[in-house]
Amino acid sequence: MLLRDSRLGEISKDVLDYISSRKADHRIFSADLLVDRAHLIMLRKQNLISPEVFRSIMDALDRIQESELGEGEDVHEAIEARILSLVGSEGGRMHTGRSRNDEVATCIRIALRDEMLDLMEELVSLAETCTALAERHTETLIPGYTHTQHAQPTTLAHHLLAHADAFLRDLSRLEDAYARVNLSPLGAAAFASTGFAINREMTCNLLGFDGLVENSMDAVSSRDFVLEVMSDLSILMVNLSRMSEELILWSTQEFGYIELDSLYASTSSIMPQKKNPDTAELARAKAGSVMGALVSALAICKALPMSYNRDLQEVTPHLWRGVDWTRSTVRILDGCLSTAKFNVDALGTSAGAGFSTATELADSLVRITGMPFRTAHRIVGRIATVGSHPTLQELDFVSWEIAQIRPSENGFSAQDLETALDPRSNVNRRAAVGGPAEAETKRMLAARKDKLAEGDKRLSERRSRIEKAWDELLNYHKN
Amino acid sequence: MLLRDSRLGEISKDVLDYISSRKADHRIFSADLLVDRAHLIMLRKQNLISPEVFRSIMDALDRIQESELGEGEDVHEAIEARILSLVGSEGGRMHTGRSRNDEVATCIRIALRDEMLDLMEELVSLAETCTALAERHTETLIPGYTHTQHAQPTTLAHHLLAHADAFLRDLSRLEDAYARVNLSPLGAAAFASTGFAINREMTCNLLGFDGLVENSMDAVSSRDFVLEVMSDLSILMVNLSRMSEELILWSTQEFGYIELDSLYASTSSIMPQKKNPDTAELARAKAGSVMGALVSALAICKALPMSYNRDLQEVTPHLWRGVDWTRSTVRILDGCLSTAKFNVDALGTSAGAGFSTATELADSLVRITGMPFRTAHRIVGRIATVGSHPTLQELDFVSWEIAQIRPSENGFSAQDLETALDPRSNVNRRAAVGGPAEAETKRMLAARKDKLAEGDKRLSERRSRIEKAWDELLNYHKN
Amino acid sequence: MLLRDSRLGEISKDVLDYISSRKADHRIFSADLLVDRAHLIMLRKQNLISPEVFRSIMDALDRIQESELGEGEDVHEAIEARILSLVGSEGGRMHTGRSRNDEVATCIRIALRDEMLDLMEELVSLAETCTALAERHTETLIPGYTHTQHAQPTTLAHHLLAHADAFLRDLSRLEDAYARVNLSPLGAAAFASTGFAINREMTCNLLGFDGLVENSMDAVSSRDFVLEVMSDLSILMVNLSRMSEELILWSTQEFGYIELDSLYASTSSIMPQKKNPDTAELARAKAGSVMGALVSALAICKALPMSYNRDLQEVTPHLWRGVDWTRSTVRILDGCLSTAKFNVDALGTSAGAGFSTATELADSLVRITGMPFRTAHRIVGRIATVGSHPTLQELDFVSWEIAQIRPSENGFSAQDLETALDPRSNVNRRAAVGGPAEAETKRMLAARKDKLAEGDKRLSERRSRIEKAWDELLNYHKN
Amino acid sequence: MLLRDSRLGEISKDVLDYISSRKADHRIFSADLLVDRAHLIMLRKQNLISPEVFRSIMDALDRIQESELGEGEDVHEAIEARILSLVGSEGGRMHTGRSRNDEVATCIRIALRDEMLDLMEELVSLAETCTALAERHTETLIPGYTHTQHAQPTTLAHHLLAHADAFLRDLSRLEDAYARVNLSPLGAAAFASTGFAINREMTCNLLGFDGLVENSMDAVSSRDFVLEVMSDLSILMVNLSRMSEELILWSTQEFGYIELDSLYASTSSIMPQKKNPDTAELARAKAGSVMGALVSALAICKALPMSYNRDLQEVTPHLWRGVDWTRSTVRILDGCLSTAKFNVDALGTSAGAGFSTATELADSLVRITGMPFRTAHRIVGRIATVGSHPTLQELDFVSWEIAQIRPSENGFSAQDLETALDPRSNVNRRAAVGGPAEAETKRMLAARKDKLAEGDKRLSERRSRIEKAWDELLNYHKN
Repeated sequence: MLLRDSRLGEISKDVLDYISSRKADHRIFSADLLVDRAHLIMLRKQNLISPEVFRSIMDALDRIQESELGEGEDVHEAIEARILSLVGSEGGRMHTGRSRNDEVATCIRIALRDEMLDLMEELVSLAETCTALAERHTETLIPGYTHTQHAQPTTLAHHLLAHADAFLRDLSRLEDAYARVNLSPLGAAAFASTGFAINREMTCNLLGFDGLVENSMDAVSSRDFVLEVMSDLSILMVNLSRMSEELILWSTQEFGYIELDSLYASTSSIMPQKKNPDTAELARAKAGSVMGALVSALAICKALPMSYNRDLQEVTPHLWRGVDWTRSTVRILDGCLSTAKFNVDALGTSAGAGFSTATELADSLVRITGMPFRTAHRIVGRIATVGSHPTLQELDFVSWEIAQIRPSENGFSAQDLETALDPRSNVNRRAAVGGPAEAETKRMLAARKDKLAEGDKRLSERRSRIEKAWDELLNYHKN
Repeated sequence: MLLRDSRLGEISKDVLDYISSRKADHRIFSADLLVDRAHLIMLRKQNLISPEVFRSIMDALDRIQESELGEGEDVHEAIEARILSLVGSEGGRMHTGRSRNDEVATCIRIALRDEMLDLMEELVSLAETCTALAERHTETLIPGYTHTQHAQPTTLAHHLLAHADAFLRDLSRLEDAYARVNLSPLGAAAFASTGFAINREMTCNLLGFDGLVENSMDAVSSRDFVLEVMSDLSILMVNLSRMSEELILWSTQEFGYIELDSLYASTSSIMPQKKNPDTAELARAKAGSVMGALVSALAICKALPMSYNRDLQEVTPHLWRGVDWTRSTVRILDGCLSTAKFNVDALGTSAGAGFSTATELADSLVRITGMPFRTAHRIVGRIATVGSHPTLQELDFVSWEIAQIRPSENGFSAQDLETALDPRSNVNRRAAVGGPAEAETKRMLAARKDKLAEGDKRLSERRSRIEKAWDELLNYHKN
Repeated sequence: MLLRDSRLGEISKDVLDYISSRKADHRIFSADLLVDRAHLIMLRKQNLISPEVFRSIMDALDRIQESELGEGEDVHEAIEARILSLVGSEGGRMHTGRSRNDEVATCIRIALRDEMLDLMEELVSLAETCTALAERHTETLIPGYTHTQHAQPTTLAHHLLAHADAFLRDLSRLEDAYARVNLSPLGAAAFASTGFAINREMTCNLLGFDGLVENSMDAVSSRDFVLEVMSDLSILMVNLSRMSEELILWSTQEFGYIELDSLYASTSSIMPQKKNPDTAELARAKAGSVMGALVSALAICKALPMSYNRDLQEVTPHLWRGVDWTRSTVRILDGCLSTAKFNVDALGTSAGAGFSTATELADSLVRITGMPFRTAHRIVGRIATVGSHPTLQELDFVSWEIAQIRPSENGFSAQDLETALDPRSNVNRRAAVGGPAEAETKRMLAARKDKLAEGDKRLSERRSRIEKAWDELLNYHKN
Repeated sequence: MLLRDSRLGEISKDVLDYISSRKADHRIFSADLLVDRAHLIMLRKQNLISPEVFRSIMDALDRIQESELGEGEDVHEAIEARILSLVGSEGGRMHTGRSRNDEVATCIRIALRDEMLDLMEELVSLAETCTALAERHTETLIPGYTHTQHAQPTTLAHHLLAHADAFLRDLSRLEDAYARVNLSPLGAAAFASTGFAINREMTCNLLGFDGLVENSMDAVSSRDFVLEVMSDLSILMVNLSRMSEELILWSTQEFGYIELDSLYASTSSIMPQKKNPDTAELARAKAGSVMGALVSALAICKALPMSYNRDLQEVTPHLWRGVDWTRSTVRILDGCLSTAKFNVDALGTSAGAGFSTATELADSLVRITGMPFRTAHRIVGRIATVGSHPTLQELDFVSWEIAQIRPSENGFSAQDLETALDPRSNVNRRAAVGGPAEAETKRMLAARKDKLAEGDKRLSERRSRIEKAWDELLNYHKN
């Protein structure tokens, strides 16, 4: 090992495996080379290295980018070792005014913001799938549930837009986190800054960051940006697991409301008739995986004194696992949902079953006869013990028994009764903001589409800012 | 039970205890009465109830506010039962166009935003304690640590400002979450909106919300706002636990850098000489408690299908526990830190011990002799195996051995050596952005104070908006 | 505060609330008095206190048992303060050779073993409910599921016994843990034992413990017994949540296999027709609560150096919460399950639906025609794309297409086909150990009943050993 | 894909990656081949396959064992595909009376028991390192801590034996779990057993299991054995993290009680003087990783209905990660501890510092003068505010002030005072069971060595039972 040469002697394979971060470091290899370039340019501009050394290290970095790395405790050390072998001892100047502590924090932030941009794009796509489906189903009646029991009829569009709104909040959380992620810790050195006349704003700009993590001790020792992103991933996964659960439930023989595309289902090694919703089950499970990764990260960071501690190395693989699990789940559910076939007839039939119109019947009694809601609730509750489609006579009978009132004598007609018991009338009545009535659904749909388009635009702007930075950085020494 | 009368028969004490939310509901009792008022006013304005019924229910609410509640499965039911007993069956009109599902979500958001405002205020105070202490210690040398090992000298101000910056990020996270918390779900009814001509914007304004959770299904079934706040609390607690760990460590006999005020320490039942940092230990522990509460909430919400499920009731007590543990810990650490005595002499002595100036010596060799950093690192590493205060001759000897160069022959004087080995010179050299040099520290201090003042101002504005809403709401029917 | 008098000065209400364990200490109040008695008797027998002091402190303990305690940082201090006020300064001898550190560990273990015995009894009762129900349903056909899809027919007894076996493992885990819980740390003092000639075996026996936690440092600082019990509770809760999920699922309108008793269901504030499985939903949720409590405890204990740290105080309330949540869930589910009505007809109809007999058809093809299993699997898989009740001709057609074989020409008769497609024949064929065939189910039933009876007996023996100890302890000074 | 051919059509790379368990399946590849062999032998003995088919599949298994596998959704499918390609369609008979569901559960248990045996051996080794070190340090005085504050003197042996006892409990927990792990689910088929006349006891014995998981539904759907082992790993890791924390703390410059071997330390990329306890820091961190893995597994298993669900596939990688992290940590800490150098002089000096003998002084006052303990505690507490080595006159003065008693007039000599204040006398007095006095320490040491030897013996017996099974299994068809 490069650094061990100096004082600490040999190291065994077992111990090296234990302390090495190399397995996770492939995630930051590209970022690391970019950080090296930005740091070098700054050293050159600040006149901290000569034009010759600058040029030869830059050349070495070009070559490293195209090849495999050798061994090393971590990727930073491996790159440095390779530079030394290509450039000679002058290559050692690359580490001027810098430490692995600020370097690794910078690399993680660069790699993470890329993952976040990809994730946000995938999330926008999933929300768009929801809105596109919703657009086709503004009139598709479905049973709405509370407690997994039929509650009141609603529409498939209303249901899908509820998921879309949750995903939009996930998006806004990720955007808020992005602002705290895309900051540069570079130049903090080991934690106490450096005596070299470095220029942190310059490397910040070269690397496409939006600002600095100023305090140098804070810059190397804080990982709350990781904890925040992992929290956001966990919450997103909870939202995804809720949709997964519904995909599983709705594709049971008993519900029979949905048929998953074969691509997202699988059969059994022993039961040839089976079509199992495996992707949705795994998506549900991965919510557990991501929340465990968050717990690991939180527990590792707990009670660490300032500043950098090696424990922090153990945090990063949990981040990448969390990111991978979440991103693949978003993509898979997007595909699973967009290819699923909804059994519109079965949904429509169920929408009116189970006396799901009872609430509207009670509400109609209140509106038309003027009785208090709680009284109407008791009347309809009594009816529910017997059946789900009372005649006007039965309604009168029960109402008299409970409240000494006969609806039919108070303006409540047989037509009113039928309307109250019709699922579609139920839905169309619910025209308040956020309700399932068709017009309101269409208003919401249009608004969500606008929101998604705006989100898309913000993502593009972030990406182009970074691309511009990369473009300048990679071509700097060629000018 | 009020609602059970109608159909489901009697309930046993055991089962009632199990399903009741009453123990946690005291947290939302006041909020619930405010929601009742706002809903009533809206019903009146929309002409959904008569002026007489409106007035009598309002009077009942005034009386309930001043008294104790009876039994009930939850606070909403208990209030409604009380209204029915005061007003008669006309009291049942209060529930027109509303459900416990939207009601409870509204109450939790109201109670939570209050807790968040208090917490943010307490957090600002803690950050102010850090900056105030930092202001007095811009020149106090301390040993800076990595891996809990002496690394390089820095200042107490630099160290405290690192904590302050973490707390400022916690604040910004909470403010971002606040924007997603302070939204009104009221009017979503059970989940499918309602056929009554309610006005959701009106209740939204009356209750001091900043907007709606529009989709009615989303409004009653989503608790990601709870998960987000609990994540923020967990991250904040991790930051607090890091400070606690330092308070414990620094007050050991071995470190001896700090003495806690007796108020925040305790003695032993058996060892009369002890002064134990109990408050800091409990603060450290409570980080574990809060992250466990987050796990409970995440695991409960996982895989719940739409819309409302009773599982959600089990989430809320974890939220309140998390809030209480976090708020008290912020307050306690604020007091503990602000009353602690720093042993400035011991810190200063340690600042230079353990060859913590080795990095600066290597850097000086680079700057003055022009040798590559990695070569200087190896030279100083070799010296470190022998001692921590080499003579110029020793430096020459080792440098020759390693790199066939003698610093003294390349412009490196005995004075340069002494300067490199002096902790204070070390610190003063680190004048880059975020470093511990005095001027830079003072710049950071001023900037943090501005940030805190702005945060304070935003908090006041939020509070006054709410207070104005309460004022109007409570006096509405008196006009 | 008693102990603060001596050196550390006054304490504020805020801080006292923060550091006090009094809210949780009511759980160990009785245990604490018993520990005081045992310690006193030992001090007397070892001649470390005089008969007079012994008698007067014992009298004081009798009086304290019947009264309310005053304030105090914890219950131990409060009891000691009360003794001092009753006995005078001689009361201070009770603390001879003892510390709060060993005292509290002893009290927790005493209170916990009682909770464990109660829980184990409740768990046995739940498993008995499963077996009793199973006994009535050895012939009740149900659809068996994998991936929540109909897979193969089985019986309700087979299904219920799967739950019973899981509960029996939970029981055996708790019994294993009990052996590590019921050990005495008393006499470890603060952590370093004591110079007084105490007798640890004596207090161990007086308190009904089965042995010592020998090493005094280990005795006060280890809480792995708490972590183990909380792990066992979490695993048990996962098992309970699985049954809860089924109760919820099976009582949906779509499944319609079960009707919960009204006692364990509730209705809606707005939807009068609803009958919601609230208790099962809360049971499912509480699994999340308990696993969060475990996380809190694990995270708190992580990285604590020897020996006692105040952090440990924060562990205990999580234990009690975990115990309470688990015990009430076991009881509630026991009631919920034992009162539920199974819709045997609907289950039977579903048992044969969805081509759940496909596996048996493939197996029959293998057994009778001798074709390889994987070939039969492919044939039946092809049939499943068309329907679920093929004719012999159709079977021949598909078999020929896939494997150039006609079952009817290889001994497979129309009768064989019917038998293979009959759910009851399916079940009765599965007579291997652990299968649903009636005889095997009855064998398993008998064996489970024996196991439960043995478990019950072990519980009784544990209880009577403790009761005997209490009897001796409480009557010691009256002889 | 083998199984998809039949009905479900093509699969995309993205989806295959998502649902595939291949990455984790290398952990069960060997086990899977053994399970195949055992199942085949049983099929042959039960006359369910012909001698020819038996022989040709066995030969295929021999060849597969020595080669690489192709693609496949999981390892079982890949092996089966390979057999079909080697044997032809008759190879499909291997799956007779079996499913992937029982197969995978069997493989996990086989692989896990091996890992557990290795872990237990490593754990025994670590505990032996503790006892071996303790044996050399029965007279090495150290400061004993509570609240990380000097409390009372003890010995290094006493301290190390506390850790050893915790590890012994970890061992006993793992042994208890092993009894629930080493059971055979094979023969449960998909979950409903099979109509083929299989013999489960035979495969159970062939595979070295100690018994059956009887109920076939339970056998494929329960993973509480995984949750239990992961709980045990989490608790063990908490114990290991406590030792890690001490290694870190004791090797700080401030404590200076220990020097880690260079193999277990590392230096800095920028600070050449550093010797960082990286292995101990990573060990501390990995406790967080393992508890997160447990959380993932618990959250995934929560609320899964019977029987097998694809979610279970997501549990297993968490298990293997938990196992790997724990095993490597045990090994690393074993090496780290056994090579560390204890600074016996510094420990001895500290042992008496900080008035750590105050408790013994108070105890001596009680023993010799007969004053109550609480009075003595107050006297010594007052002395502690001034210094840590009072004269007899000072003691008299303070005692008179507080309790109107002069120790010197009540038999307390200057010699008594010196003895009380001497750390070694302190330790030697603590001769009660579990205390640090030399004789008692030696008794404990001998007892621990016996326990470890017995544990070792049990491990060997378990291993040889399995090896015997493998021997028979692998040579069965060669006879």
